[in-house]
Amino acid sequence: MAAPPPNPVPLGYQTSAAAPFWLNKGDNAWQMVAATLVGLQSVPGLVILYGSIVKKKWAVNSAFMALYAFAAVILCWVTWAYKMSFGHKLLPFWGKAGPALGQNFLIQQAALYETTQFYKNGGVETAMATPLYPMATMVWFQCVFAAITLILLAGSLLGRMNIRAWMMFVPLWLTFSYTVGAFSLWGGGFLFHWGVMDYSGGYVIHLSSGIAGFTAAYWVGPRSTRDRERFPPNNVLLMLAGAGLLWLGWAGFNGGDPYSANTDSSMAVLNTNVCAGHQPPRLDVPGRHLLQEALRDWSRPRHDHRPRLHHPSCRTGSGMGGDCDGDPIGEHPLVHNDDSAQEVDSPPEGGRHPGGVPHARCGRVPGRDPDGAVRGAGAVLAVPPGNKFHGRSLRGFGRGPDREAAGGRVVHNRMERGGDVDHMPCGGAGDPAEDAGGGAADRGRRGPRGGGVRSVGGTGRSTTRLLTAPRIPRSERCRRAEPLRWCKETTTKGK
Amino acid sequence: MAAPPPNPVPLGYQTSAAAPFWLNKGDNAWQMVAATLVGLQSVPGLVILYGSIVKKKWAVNSAFMALYAFAAVILCWVTWAYKMSFGHKLLPFWGKAGPALGQNFLIQQAALYETTQFYKNGGVETAMATPLYPMATMVWFQCVFAAITLILLAGSLLGRMNIRAWMMFVPLWLTFSYTVGAFSLWGGGFLFHWGVMDYSGGYVIHLSSGIAGFTAAYWVGPRSTRDRERFPPNNVLLMLAGAGLLWLGWAGFNGGDPYSANTDSSMAVLNTNVCAGHQPPRLDVPGRHLLQEALRDWSRPRHDHRPRLHHPSCRTGSGMGGDCDGDPIGEHPLVHNDDSAQEVDSPPEGGRHPGGVPHARCGRVPGRDPDGAVRGAGAVLAVPPGNKFHGRSLRGFGRGPDREAAGGRVVHNRMERGGDVDHMPCGGAGDPAEDAGGGAADRGRRGPRGGGVRSVGGTGRSTTRLLTAPRIPRSERCRRAEPLRWCKETTTKGK
Amino acid sequence: MAAPPPNPVPLGYQTSAAAPFWLNKGDNAWQMVAATLVGLQSVPGLVILYGSIVKKKWAVNSAFMALYAFAAVILCWVTWAYKMSFGHKLLPFWGKAGPALGQNFLIQQAALYETTQFYKNGGVETAMATPLYPMATMVWFQCVFAAITLILLAGSLLGRMNIRAWMMFVPLWLTFSYTVGAFSLWGGGFLFHWGVMDYSGGYVIHLSSGIAGFTAAYWVGPRSTRDRERFPPNNVLLMLAGAGLLWLGWAGFNGGDPYSANTDSSMAVLNTNVCAGHQPPRLDVPGRHLLQEALRDWSRPRHDHRPRLHHPSCRTGSGMGGDCDGDPIGEHPLVHNDDSAQEVDSPPEGGRHPGGVPHARCGRVPGRDPDGAVRGAGAVLAVPPGNKFHGRSLRGFGRGPDREAAGGRVVHNRMERGGDVDHMPCGGAGDPAEDAGGGAADRGRRGPRGGGVRSVGGTGRSTTRLLTAPRIPRSERCRRAEPLRWCKETTTKGK
Repeated sequence: MAAPPPNPVPLGYQTSAAAPFWLNKGDNAWQMVAATLVGLQSVPGLVILYGSIVKKKWAVNSAFMALYAFAAVILCWVTWAYKMSFGHKLLPFWGKAGPALGQNFLIQQAALYETTQFYKNGGVETAMATPLYPMATMVWFQCVFAAITLILLAGSLLGRMNIRAWMMFVPLWLTFSYTVGAFSLWGGGFLFHWGVMDYSGGYVIHLSSGIAGFTAAYWVGPRSTRDRERFPPNNVLLMLAGAGLLWLGWAGFNGGDPYSANTDSSMAVLNTNVCAGHQPPRLDVPGRHLLQEALRDWSRPRHDHRPRLHHPSCRTGSGMGGDCDGDPIGEHPLVHNDDSAQEVDSPPEGGRHPGGVPHARCGRVPGRDPDGAVRGAGAVLAVPPGNKFHGRSLRGFGRGPDREAAGGRVVHNRMERGGDVDHMPCGGAGDPAEDAGGGAADRGRRGPRGGGVRSVGGTGRSTTRLLTAPRIPRSERCRRAEPLRWCKETTTKGK
Repeated sequence: MAAPPPNPVPLGYQTSAAAPFWLNKGDNAWQMVAATLVGLQSVPGLVILYGSIVKKKWAVNSAFMALYAFAAVILCWVTWAYKMSFGHKLLPFWGKAGPALGQNFLIQQAALYETTQFYKNGGVETAMATPLYPMATMVWFQCVFAAITLILLAGSLLGRMNIRAWMMFVPLWLTFSYTVGAFSLWGGGFLFHWGVMDYSGGYVIHLSSGIAGFTAAYWVGPRSTRDRERFPPNNVLLMLAGAGLLWLGWAGFNGGDPYSANTDSSMAVLNTNVCAGHQPPRLDVPGRHLLQEALRDWSRPRHDHRPRLHHPSCRTGSGMGGDCDGDPIGEHPLVHNDDSAQEVDSPPEGGRHPGGVPHARCGRVPGRDPDGAVRGAGAVLAVPPGNKFHGRSLRGFGRGPDREAAGGRVVHNRMERGGDVDHMPCGGAGDPAEDAGGGAADRGRRGPRGGGVRSVGGTGRSTTRLLTAPRIPRSERCRRAEPLRWCKETTTKGK
Repeated sequence: MAAPPPNPVPLGYQTSAAAPFWLNKGDNAWQMVAATLVGLQSVPGLVILYGSIVKKKWAVNSAFMALYAFAAVILCWVTWAYKMSFGHKLLPFWGKAGPALGQNFLIQQAALYETTQFYKNGGVETAMATPLYPMATMVWFQCVFAAITLILLAGSLLGRMNIRAWMMFVPLWLTFSYTVGAFSLWGGGFLFHWGVMDYSGGYVIHLSSGIAGFTAAYWVGPRSTRDRERFPPNNVLLMLAGAGLLWLGWAGFNGGDPYSANTDSSMAVLNTNVCAGHQPPRLDVPGRHLLQEALRDWSRPRHDHRPRLHHPSCRTGSGMGGDCDGDPIGEHPLVHNDDSAQEVDSPPEGGRHPGGVPHARCGRVPGRDPDGAVRGAGAVLAVPPGNKFHGRSLRGFGRGPDREAAGGRVVHNRMERGGDVDHMPCGGAGDPAEDAGGGAADRGRRGPRGGGVRSVGGTGRSTTRLLTAPRIPRSERCRRAEPLRWCKETTTKGK
């Protein structure tokens, strides 16, 4: 009787009790790190960003809104919301609620049950998404996305919402809104099976929190007059600290969405940072589009001959209210929205959500070799020829052979905005624009649609307004302008 | 002569000069990241947390205490203390001292020499723990745990200790106390072989630093009268920045302790954050138990009709002294302890150590499928049926076949506190409680044991005191109360 | 016909569409994390460090210099500079420019094309470096190194440079200086083939940014008189926050340079932190050499009997100007250099670049088992016997068999400074010294070379000056001293 041949697999990659045959520790490590990075975007990232971007009196309040949302979402998530988003189908847009807490559930291989795609004859077209790590990793990774969505939403409400209302709102919105989007697009709901693609949350996270923030801001009403007149950030450097965590945390946000440390994640990380370098948003870095603003600044005659570097940064804070020219940017007269997270926004120059990082989904990597199989508006990072891309990137988990070649079905609807392809961030068309994050607002102000959109040119940038007259007459705003007011305060005290 | 069959192992997972057969790069990556996350909890996490939670005059001093401890521990660790904690046995509670610096030692496979468990007949019951990465990774990972232990200990002494004494204390305590606990419980000492289980430092880190902090605070004496009367944090937002790093860094702290990126680590990361979401500690987030406090706050009549969100945050700072109602929380009249890291604490509501993260060990994941093999008080995360759990989780490193099924021997003594099972954090029993971190203090104040324990009910929460009369009479404290004093200062200046 | 034998490779490690045969997901995960850590060193690390270490009036300006550099480098990098640094050879010191953006380029296996080393007879001596992850990961990893180099360089110019000039300088210096160093040493240029070794940027990053900063500071001229007289950091705690990110981020900086999560990276991470623990630089932690200073402080008679912990921290800020004794440290009268990142520096005590982390390359791990194959000045972390080490660590990627044994060719020139071996950081010779980071400055002041070098002894430490008389007479400086001035301001306001 011959001895069995020696195992050719190196010891390090053999299975064991806690390392089942389906486990890839590289994937698991990356996914846990990615979740942690997204968590860091929220805590302390957005906590200190929100805390420092507002007027001092709202600092702790704003930080607490973010912190509360993070904690509350976690508990709701594992108790009922995860399974509503990624569990078995209850309705075409909802999964069956249930806890995601039992160890028998959590230590098995991760699986998004409803993501199997069938041919009409019942054959399997694309296998279920079954990443190579435990369900526990999946539950936590998806959790931080749910949490940051609520925190982004909070950005529309800083300094203007009753905290009790916020405390009630968080679990309700999570349960009745977030889970619907997540299941429909990611968990295998009807949009997923229609072929709608949402790589890293353009709809599930940014569109939904944008709409919700817009709506909530409408109901909540404007902030107090005194706050509207003057709302300087209380700590610019700490704001940059939060924004920096936000920027680099995007490596986990977009890099984690292939559910694997594979070639897709590498592309997503690079692509994310390239786009962020081009157009860091008003929140993340000083200046809307850091480079655009900086270059414009450079080419214009300046008021003085000292370096004006604090100028772009001045705009950073402006997202929350007091602009350099006294013009409360982003405040729609209709809803008095001044979303600090830019989920709802109006500047035609783009610069949408925090990090300004167009989701990797939003554009093909520009360059020389545009020969990916999936083309057009929906082209997604690096898609090797002959690969489909449903919902989040599901490639890389399959069992090799049952990966199939199929070009079709990728639908990029972007709310059917049709002509807006050239506005895709990182698209080839030169000027970057916003992603779906502010889709609702976008609609209102784009071209012929949306009614009374008009541009109010400021000194070098235009502010688009939704409806009619701004609440504060322009002349009045100008009178109050005191150029670079808070900047001066912020930066010159030490002189 | 037939050609050898092609290697079925993909190129990426084949061995090479710097990737020996025992190396799993996923494990190695995760372990290095986990160590880095724990390092970030200390530097800059606790450095800025300590620096900002104290009165301004103590800011740099407190930050330096943490920073010095981090640097000093590293040097002592690699020079002698690692081998005292994880090396070959010298005494049942101590390993033989020696440097962990040579490359021949550091590039070999990690191994905790004394963790082999034998049957009475000499057969091997459980193989030695030999994680699938180099010793260098193990040395650094264990080092950050030693460092953070000293820094947690420092929390009891902020603003009241001579720095020379602290500089002498750090290497001494590391050498004569930390190594004993680490070797006895983790390195294969007598407690390990008795079966005592300490998943992630409940004894080795939190109990020991708690006792030491308590003791040290006794000897150091109270802080100056002026500081005791008024000790507001000097920067609430920066405190939250530190606390946020602390929270998310727990992914490395507990997630790294299975010594592998396996199913255990996934469970630990999820479990850790679920527990933290429930009861972020006073330090990490505003409010003891963020959600408990927030809900209580919500259901009570309020003094005013403005949102009081700064209220919970107010309590955040209270750990260090000035409470909202003028009641120096946590100050034991006996030792004047006001440990900012909560290693020694007395509130019966729980909320123990920084991060408030019950070590994964501290509770079974609550939920529907409680059918893990290892039950009862010691149930540890996800333990697949038929697995033992000695010391830190040692599964996943083994060589497959020599993993054995054995239900027994797991002992969860929690200082033999018996009836306290319902106080386990994340236990099913509803109210979370403290983990072993403050075990010593716990003992003193629990039920019939511990002598003169009494609860002093505050406005909505009770403060338990160790011995007799508080130094400052209650009436006097009340008179000085000025509710929300520092909060007002902190948050309303900008109004 | 026999069925094919079952695949012995566990499912988790099998290949798939997005996980090609050459992909090691552990390596890929680690490399993406390492890049993110280095990114965090810059944003928000150096952004807030620079923003807080300067006088308040320069806070936003300084932060913006760093932020702009980060964003601008990313765009230049992927558009032309990556291929100039790591692409195909154009000249012995330059690669052919071209975009690194196409997906066909980015999803293939990473490769540094010019790193193959040939025997004279044309046979391959060492195979091309082909790390086990996609090119996209490599492009992003190398990008953050380029970015941080520019940001380090900015440290010499804080508060003294026109921002337009900086905006123009960044892409120019990147294109015409950084790429030359990177290609020559890392990308397979002439220095690489001469055998010059630069593990993690001693030349490519620190020497080059040091020289450039020195030169730029010369041309830019001194800062304004008022700033030279008084330049206190505006936020010590935030400075520590940035410094802490810098410290722990080094795990990615040095740990990522083996291009793999292998034994080399483990050694690098441990070694990096051991060295940092010994001599955290003036920027990272309070005090030049945290432990040296602290111990010296402890052993000296003190002016008062209160803990003086703020003293070492005082020196922290001194890098930027106002020293505790009124002595603007590091200001060379010739160029008025006071590089906050210490790239150009003169204190003979050492403490060179941010993090003070001697690149792993800079020293053999001290200890008992110094039997690595590669010895001498160039001994690099753990080099298993029979391994070469060209440029960055290239081991671990190879295809196993074609790894060869060769002891030779490793040249450590350190600018041919000969006798300076004992000054290598982490060298065995007791006193740590500076690495190549400030080589240029070093030369000027070492021994007989460099002309009028003289030491000006301060209270306990000497300041070396480049040429003749300091601009501000010593007596005058002493008169203005007010010991611990800014420290007092910073730390005692809250008293």
